[in-house]
Amino acid sequence: MSPKVAILLANGFEEAEAFMIFNALKRVKIDVEFLSCSNDFEVLSYHNVIVKAHGLLKQKNTTLYDAIVLPGGPEGTVNLGKNGDVINFIKLHDENGKLICPICSAAIKVLGKNKLLKGRQYTCSGDLFMMENDGVYLNKDIVIDANLFSGQGLGYAYKFAFTLAKKLGMDEKEVQFQAEHIYLYDI
Amino acid sequence: MSPKVAILLANGFEEAEAFMIFNALKRVKIDVEFLSCSNDFEVLSYHNVIVKAHGLLKQKNTTLYDAIVLPGGPEGTVNLGKNGDVINFIKLHDENGKLICPICSAAIKVLGKNKLLKGRQYTCSGDLFMMENDGVYLNKDIVIDANLFSGQGLGYAYKFAFTLAKKLGMDEKEVQFQAEHIYLYDI
Repeated sequence: MSPKVAILLANGFEEAEAFMIFNALKRVKIDVEFLSCSNDFEVLSYHNVIVKAHGLLKQKNTTLYDAIVLPGGPEGTVNLGKNGDVINFIKLHDENGKLICPICSAAIKVLGKNKLLKGRQYTCSGDLFMMENDGVYLNKDIVIDANLFSGQGLGYAYKFAFTLAKKLGMDEKEVQFQAEHIYLYDI
Repeated sequence: MSPKVAILLANGFEEAEAFMIFNALKRVKIDVEFLSCSNDFEVLSYHNVIVKAHGLLKQKNTTLYDAIVLPGGPEGTVNLGKNGDVINFIKLHDENGKLICPICSAAIKVLGKNKLLKGRQYTCSGDLFMMENDGVYLNKDIVIDANLFSGQGLGYAYKFAFTLAKKLGMDEKEVQFQAEHIYLYDI
């Protein structure tokens, strides 16, 4: 059975990060869906595009996914970080050893802000690491520490997704084939 | 005044190409919008995400943009290529020397199919170039011939967008800065 991944969307989400990760995971046949973290299926992206999520977090909050992805976006990560449903959902997955996958500002503004980095190594964008001291920041494109799988930013979103696919047990040659099929060689 | 760009969406459009190009152009302050090519603002992407366009092509079909972008997607480019409104819109822009910007399969399945490559050099994904003999295929990531600005595929979508921004007259240093800000160095 394919691994299941949820990408959590709140208003202000970084649309290209969300779609690049979604797209790459779909290409390697991972069962991935967008979950809106509000009561509305429609979510407004960072640069003002309305996207309809596949489901509502409120209706899936007891579902265990193999990985949950937290995209960036200046307001998006603020909105994720102050949403109790999101924090409970992350805690549920963390306690069950599922992959927690923030990219860009999400490691700091969602996890760090809620003391969920828990001393683990992580990466995030720019110098946001200075905002919290809950984890150990590394200036790398991708950092994996136990079940915390973090990415630095938008330019690495495809590498982040294809690396996540391999971490989720997808066949390495197939992942490489799919990446090269879309002209991505540095994954 | 900022250049104006329209990204044309039809059901089946390659969501990551569309969003990467949209995102990059937004980051360099280009006035870019998604236009739905049907009567419905909602468009269904290649991997089944509903996205709400900013406008309808039918309501903008006499507006002259500085560039029109045609994303890929196996069904998306079939749907663009058989849509009379799309073809008329492309012809209007081509006749006025505006940039026509297909990526992935769009050069062949939208332009080639409708004899709109007109002998110009272009690129497209895979070996689709064998389907039409209306233009001169080059195996390159980006090909610019007069006002035809084509890209090979998804992995080059950011390079395509930032190169397009420079072609539209945006400041080269600012474009480079914005690219590096999101960890993209090879543009």
